[in-house]
Amino acid sequence: MKKSEKTREFILSRCAPVFNQKGFAGTSLSDLENATGLTKGCIYGLFNNKEELAVECFEYARALIHERMDSEARQKSNAVEKLQAIFDMYRTYPEFWPIKGGCPILNTSIDADDTNPLLQEKVVRALEIWRRFFSSIITMGIRNGEIKPDANPHVIATLFIALLEGATMMTKAYNDSSSLGIVLDKIDEVINQIKL
Amino acid sequence: MKKSEKTREFILSRCAPVFNQKGFAGTSLSDLENATGLTKGCIYGLFNNKEELAVECFEYARALIHERMDSEARQKSNAVEKLQAIFDMYRTYPEFWPIKGGCPILNTSIDADDTNPLLQEKVVRALEIWRRFFSSIITMGIRNGEIKPDANPHVIATLFIALLEGATMMTKAYNDSSSLGIVLDKIDEVINQIKL
Repeated sequence: MKKSEKTREFILSRCAPVFNQKGFAGTSLSDLENATGLTKGCIYGLFNNKEELAVECFEYARALIHERMDSEARQKSNAVEKLQAIFDMYRTYPEFWPIKGGCPILNTSIDADDTNPLLQEKVVRALEIWRRFFSSIITMGIRNGEIKPDANPHVIATLFIALLEGATMMTKAYNDSSSLGIVLDKIDEVINQIKL
Repeated sequence: MKKSEKTREFILSRCAPVFNQKGFAGTSLSDLENATGLTKGCIYGLFNNKEELAVECFEYARALIHERMDSEARQKSNAVEKLQAIFDMYRTYPEFWPIKGGCPILNTSIDADDTNPLLQEKVVRALEIWRRFFSSIITMGIRNGEIKPDANPHVIATLFIALLEGATMMTKAYNDSSSLGIVLDKIDEVINQIKL
């Protein structure tokens, strides 16, 4: 890895939690300088502008969480167990959450939906990757005889995401994970309904 | 109503959709001036500062939606029908949504959770009012023999809110209400499970 690539990676790792917590408009240059210990010249020598940096930070945060989920899922061979392993990640939320500030898809979506079309486009792409991640596990489970053939992967994946995102918002608002616990119990119920 | 009260109400009605779409940090003084056609001096003659204005705009937007839900519910006497009437509001979302920018609780929560304790406190209070609104309808339904006695009002109200907020985020992100449709079908299923 070249030195400039290392610095880019370092900047993303430090700035992604800032954007994730403060949002695009709420993040100031001095927030980014404080988070990295670098000057404006150094940061914007590697990223063209604040929007490019925010887009790459979002992608960095999204990939971090996606890889964590994927790695949990890969440790299981059965589709039902893969789903359960992913949702177990949320049982330890927020202590073991990969990035400060909660779900970057939720945060960036609310931040960007009325104001920032470029970030918004990335959110839609991230939602689609996530929905396909869940639905492909469910489809695999149907093929392997682990999940009922009449389960609708797209519908179930959509419900999982809506439940998780709604509960993530409530958990952060209340600073208490009891709403998330209720939602995770409901998700368990859905999994039990579809498993063979 | 005094003239200053009328002006306050006018400012809230014009600024609430701006804060709801752009967030606290993303809303500039010129956004507020453009939305109202009033000067800084006039706006801040009636509100002490941007934070006080944002808090009152949030409360204005929240009350607008709550009153709309309450008015739908009041037209029915049966608890199950009250719930269905409220969720029917979402079937026409976003065309008939009372305020531009989607759900102010969701937007303000994500906007404020890591940055603005005063707004955050208002969000928690609003979530509690909403959760109690749903759970009191369910409790009434249990008492009146319309809903099964083993239904847990708090749990079901939490699931409704998580599902609606998650789907609202997805609907705004995709600019397409198919995710909301999936969630509303699931909510119908939950209502059918608990009704007597």
